[in-house]
Amino acid sequence: MASPKAFALHPRLVADCHQLGRLPQCRLLLHRNPLIPWLILVPEVAVEELFAIPHPQRTRIQGEWDRLARFVHRHFDCDRINMAAIGNLVPQLHLHVVGRRVDDPCWPGVVWGRLPQGSQWPDRELQALVGALEKELGLRTG
Amino acid sequence: MASPKAFALHPRLVADCHQLGRLPQCRLLLHRNPLIPWLILVPEVAVEELFAIPHPQRTRIQGEWDRLARFVHRHFDCDRINMAAIGNLVPQLHLHVVGRRVDDPCWPGVVWGRLPQGSQWPDRELQALVGALEKELGLRTG
Repeated sequence: MASPKAFALHPRLVADCHQLGRLPQCRLLLHRNPLIPWLILVPEVAVEELFAIPHPQRTRIQGEWDRLARFVHRHFDCDRINMAAIGNLVPQLHLHVVGRRVDDPCWPGVVWGRLPQGSQWPDRELQALVGALEKELGLRTG
Repeated sequence: MASPKAFALHPRLVADCHQLGRLPQCRLLLHRNPLIPWLILVPEVAVEELFAIPHPQRTRIQGEWDRLARFVHRHFDCDRINMAAIGNLVPQLHLHVVGRRVDDPCWPGVVWGRLPQGSQWPDRELQALVGALEKELGLRTG
């Protein structure tokens, strides 16, 4: 496991995402494109594959991924949650939670490489999201 | 949890995949397109979302997903494993394990909706795969 000092986000994740804060095992990011609620967990680990995380940390990270998926499903009133670890473009391990609705611009396709250009998250929605994540998942910001 | 009698694979999974056999928690399928090694676990559960599987079954299914990912990584000498639960087209919960190589026809894109038409798995490769799955993961066939 990387020490907190050694841990750094991949530059592409920094460029593409808002950094919302930290959960016990992971950094929590939000894709800047607001057309679809797309959250990303970055476990603070040194390995690049999900299946390579040693136990019991693997189980704790799974719990965070599930809790975030449940939160996104509820908060954004989604029809389906897409959960994925892909990493073809960004080798640093990161876990997608994509809230899908049958009326979203990618449905029923996947979002990766297909999401149309969007504007940006309104400040008020971003603040409401962070507030809900603090309250419901214990997100630590700042 | 669905009883074994009530459990039936979604017709699209049946059409798209070889049915390789059963692991303790899941049916194991192989996508018929041989251009990329693409395996699919179908947990024998009634819920449609990964995060909705009750514990401790959730943990057991995670273990099977990880073991299959490790197997595909090793057996097909992959550069990366894509693990995903999507379900936009097939609502029945199913877990992808896609073995990716930097020289495969979709790299670095994802496979969903993008895989070119392929031929079919040669019988000999299919038999070798099933034999290795029986030996290394305890796959039950027939």
